[in-house]
Amino acid sequence: MEQSFLAYLRGRCRSLPQVSVGIGDDAAVIEPPTGQLIACTDQIIDGTDFRSQQLAPDHSLADVGYKSMAINLSDIAAMGAVPTSALVTLSLPKTNATRIAGEVYEGILQAAEEFQVAIAGGDISTYEGPLAITVTLLGHVPPNAAWLRRSAELGDAVLVTGAVGGSILGRHLRPNPRVELAQILRDSVNVHGAIDISDGLSLDLDRLCAASGVGIELNIATIPIHDDAIVLSEKTGRTPFEHAWSDGEDFELILTMNQADADKVLEMPLPCEITQIGKMISRTGLWKHEGTKLVRLSPQGYIH
Amino acid sequence: MEQSFLAYLRGRCRSLPQVSVGIGDDAAVIEPPTGQLIACTDQIIDGTDFRSQQLAPDHSLADVGYKSMAINLSDIAAMGAVPTSALVTLSLPKTNATRIAGEVYEGILQAAEEFQVAIAGGDISTYEGPLAITVTLLGHVPPNAAWLRRSAELGDAVLVTGAVGGSILGRHLRPNPRVELAQILRDSVNVHGAIDISDGLSLDLDRLCAASGVGIELNIATIPIHDDAIVLSEKTGRTPFEHAWSDGEDFELILTMNQADADKVLEMPLPCEITQIGKMISRTGLWKHEGTKLVRLSPQGYIH
Repeated sequence: MEQSFLAYLRGRCRSLPQVSVGIGDDAAVIEPPTGQLIACTDQIIDGTDFRSQQLAPDHSLADVGYKSMAINLSDIAAMGAVPTSALVTLSLPKTNATRIAGEVYEGILQAAEEFQVAIAGGDISTYEGPLAITVTLLGHVPPNAAWLRRSAELGDAVLVTGAVGGSILGRHLRPNPRVELAQILRDSVNVHGAIDISDGLSLDLDRLCAASGVGIELNIATIPIHDDAIVLSEKTGRTPFEHAWSDGEDFELILTMNQADADKVLEMPLPCEITQIGKMISRTGLWKHEGTKLVRLSPQGYIH
Repeated sequence: MEQSFLAYLRGRCRSLPQVSVGIGDDAAVIEPPTGQLIACTDQIIDGTDFRSQQLAPDHSLADVGYKSMAINLSDIAAMGAVPTSALVTLSLPKTNATRIAGEVYEGILQAAEEFQVAIAGGDISTYEGPLAITVTLLGHVPPNAAWLRRSAELGDAVLVTGAVGGSILGRHLRPNPRVELAQILRDSVNVHGAIDISDGLSLDLDRLCAASGVGIELNIATIPIHDDAIVLSEKTGRTPFEHAWSDGEDFELILTMNQADADKVLEMPLPCEITQIGKMISRTGLWKHEGTKLVRLSPQGYIH
């Protein structure tokens, strides 16, 4: 099916100036980035990252395709980068391969259009296994200006976008990668450390701290809890906070910057909510105040 | 297993100047290419592209890892490009996942070292399915100088590297991507059209012709038949030529250039054999002379 599907796909993919030669040659020819190149790759697999037989109501394989792009767009946003082009690899079950590929690509192309990403190439195979989608996304940042996990600084304010918890109710298939926000912040302030929340707020906070060699004092009451976490807590018996703390796949950003920049950001009109949840301290790990004492918190989330 | 394996891998991956930030952040930071960026992606799956239970004698999963890199290196070579960095995605069976990942990576790292490619990032999952490896390879070419399938010209000489046929005897796991040769030719002559042989000499010749809107008159007697095709023919009852014509996974290059450049190349000392097998004609398709008549040949190979 590969050749005929690729012919169909060439017709569906819009030309964008960043890709000179797209699908159909041995490799794609892409215009050089301004600044440095940013590249990431993430796969999602049926049965592990979604369940095609048990999708939430109103969801389809197009959402799965959208997700495969969105999780990579979130990684690009977490670097403060602009996404430009993608290579998409589909591993398809042999039964209904063409129909599945078509449905998945509806969502991939929707995300590509929404974020002005060119589909530069890819690969398609059928096999004895579950649907798996691997996206490699390319983007760019100004020279030496990527936001890194290791660049958070002592005294930094720690901010989080949106609200977290309960994404499993369906939101994890249609996250909002914070690509636009990242560009607004890049133009306005000096972001130090950044990471996206894929495995849980606390686990990814902990990773950011570990990479930067600092810790964080959280103001627990300020952590923005998503309505989904409240709905889910009624089913699970766990508290909404527990879901916010440890659920994965929020695809929000954790960002650090000096307090003056944070104060500026908190006053700016932005395309999404942003909340200060703590500040970076020298004592490593995650902490909260209880009275005058600092109490250590345990990171929880999805361990691969 | 992902976090601990990534820690191991960070230790094993050499730093190369082209990658500023490698494994361990949300995305890799890569130095911008000189000229244009070249990007390709290819996956191989157990049961389809290799059989881990029936590897040829003296082969192991390290060879499978090597192959996952080599097939992409061959695509980069077919663009006349220099490879620089790779992103590697492993989908691992749940049983023995860490052992399998380790063995596969031995071959990946060997290819990376041999071709001076930096492993910039990737993804690892375990799942209910066969071993699958997806490599995205990045490289660069001088501006507007990529060798394309569509750039073969009427009157061009058609050359092929190495010898073809019978790769299934084991050579398909350890191909010789013609990266070095491509750079020598780029520095010496003006290559017009190019494609690598992945699905069979005749099928890939036909694709090159179709993309360029020309045909080829082959001098059948000059087609370089690999010894493996002769050995295989004794088992299959097909002729060595039939194997050379239609077997896939040779990962040799088909190149077109004007006759003066071809004559120059055929006299040059090169790291591999190169043979002129025909010339581009206006009548589309594949042809050979029989007496004074042109007889049409049917392309055969691996149709995905």
